[in-house]
Amino acid sequence: MGNKKVVLSGMRPSGPLHLGNYSVLKDWIRLQEEHDCYYFIADWHALTTGYRETGELSGNIQEMLLDWLSAGLDPERSVLFRQSAVLEQAELYLLLAMITPIAWLERCPTFKEQLRELKGKEINTYGFLGYPLLQAADILAYRADAVPVGEDQAPHLEITREIARRFNHLYRKVFPEPESLFGSASLVPGTDGRKMSKSYDNYIVLSASPEEIKKKIRSMITDPRRARRSDPGRPDVCTVYEFQKVFNPGERQEIEESCRQAGIGCVQCKERLASRLCRYLEPFAEKRRELQGKPHRLQEILEAGNQKAARVARQTLEMVREAMQL
Amino acid sequence: MGNKKVVLSGMRPSGPLHLGNYSVLKDWIRLQEEHDCYYFIADWHALTTGYRETGELSGNIQEMLLDWLSAGLDPERSVLFRQSAVLEQAELYLLLAMITPIAWLERCPTFKEQLRELKGKEINTYGFLGYPLLQAADILAYRADAVPVGEDQAPHLEITREIARRFNHLYRKVFPEPESLFGSASLVPGTDGRKMSKSYDNYIVLSASPEEIKKKIRSMITDPRRARRSDPGRPDVCTVYEFQKVFNPGERQEIEESCRQAGIGCVQCKERLASRLCRYLEPFAEKRRELQGKPHRLQEILEAGNQKAARVARQTLEMVREAMQL
Repeated sequence: MGNKKVVLSGMRPSGPLHLGNYSVLKDWIRLQEEHDCYYFIADWHALTTGYRETGELSGNIQEMLLDWLSAGLDPERSVLFRQSAVLEQAELYLLLAMITPIAWLERCPTFKEQLRELKGKEINTYGFLGYPLLQAADILAYRADAVPVGEDQAPHLEITREIARRFNHLYRKVFPEPESLFGSASLVPGTDGRKMSKSYDNYIVLSASPEEIKKKIRSMITDPRRARRSDPGRPDVCTVYEFQKVFNPGERQEIEESCRQAGIGCVQCKERLASRLCRYLEPFAEKRRELQGKPHRLQEILEAGNQKAARVARQTLEMVREAMQL
Repeated sequence: MGNKKVVLSGMRPSGPLHLGNYSVLKDWIRLQEEHDCYYFIADWHALTTGYRETGELSGNIQEMLLDWLSAGLDPERSVLFRQSAVLEQAELYLLLAMITPIAWLERCPTFKEQLRELKGKEINTYGFLGYPLLQAADILAYRADAVPVGEDQAPHLEITREIARRFNHLYRKVFPEPESLFGSASLVPGTDGRKMSKSYDNYIVLSASPEEIKKKIRSMITDPRRARRSDPGRPDVCTVYEFQKVFNPGERQEIEESCRQAGIGCVQCKERLASRLCRYLEPFAEKRRELQGKPHRLQEILEAGNQKAARVARQTLEMVREAMQL
């Protein structure tokens, strides 16, 4: 550690990661090269909308760590930890609560949107309203300089910046105002052409077996006007072709031309994609199998990350308490 | 500790304690006899309305501990601690936030009342709205059975009970529903006849010197219709007489009769009260002088209390995390 910029991000442990999450992970992995990275499993965040269903949380946390490590996050270079293991983040949430106007949280665009979307889940709770504040505490506890965010999360980061400014103004400059790092958007859509997402059931998990991959790809819709094998296809409206572009760039051109001339059928095209995707995910799967046999090692990694994170958060909280004259 | 009931209460460190607070303290001291008592200095609570003015906080915390010990709180029997020293209380605040509907907090009668009263102080913050929740976390972190409260605080305790019920229902029974212990109301009014309160500047602090006591009592208003020494007085409308009833019960009857017959003048009556009150507060003052010479001892007491409290809160939070399957 030292003069490098501090980067922080987290993911909710809501089940196995899929190809859509992979592009985020690849950004994270790239950021490891030149930054001090803190990546956390956001189990407290999961409670903001899922406080009733907590039975799968601890399993999901294990799986997420497995996915992260298999994808290439390196615990020697990045601090991988669990949000709820650092009580100082709860303390900072509480202290920042005192200076954060309710209006800042109420006007957050995702607040009312999600209230509508998740109607019936009874999420109109104090914790749900405070979600952007909890995120601010996550970020500021490590005095992060930059946060990789999706475009939809930019308003949350803006609240973090406002809270940092207000704190620095009321007491003393403790926090940098973290910048957004807009990541490379995922190139691969869901298997139905929409955005790949757990809520649409159109995803392929990173840990899928070859059989699962084949099955998922077989079920994909291709050009709806290509009713017979002998009809020419239109790659530009075909989701399978979108996948070929990402996972089979070497054969992409040949497949495109062949499809337009009815040279290749959808079944065959899907088979070629499936075998490419299996090969693409094979290093991931291999790493995962290896790690799955070492549960103690996983626990050690998380424990070491928790401790490193807590050490840094403790230092920040000392600065915070001193600035607030507590 | 053991099978005794757990009692918990706290006070904000907002300056030296006065005679009005003393009746609360006397309840606390009495409760030590038969309960496991946890008494905390509520420095986080002080931030809900006073996040801008924190300069005097740490001095006030020292003074409050001095006042408590001088009045007779016994660190061998009760756990005396500082709220902000127990991070598990912040964790519980965060976890309970997830299950607490915003509406429960918004309908709390003191919320809108104080928003009006403290207008201009910019206290419409997330932390201020969450004040009853923070109180719930204080109480539930020690699984308290009973809480001594003023009548005005009863609605807050009701929220605590609702939150405890909701948690026990959603997950598993962890929390008792704490009962209110209504204390003996203060018998002594402020020096102007209204309720003794810091905001009215009508108070006499427990640590007042004999000179301060005399000065405060000399300035008290007596029967306004008794313009001359020779006029008979009406003890039932005289605040000095209210004080005599409390602090000079032995001479009360004689003074009453003498006043009605213009036998005793207001100046003399006040002198007798002042000398009684000085004697009444002398043991307190003596204990305070003794303790003031031992700052290390004070620090030790608070440190030991913090640790005992943290141990208990840690146990509760383990139960909470287990119940929530975290």
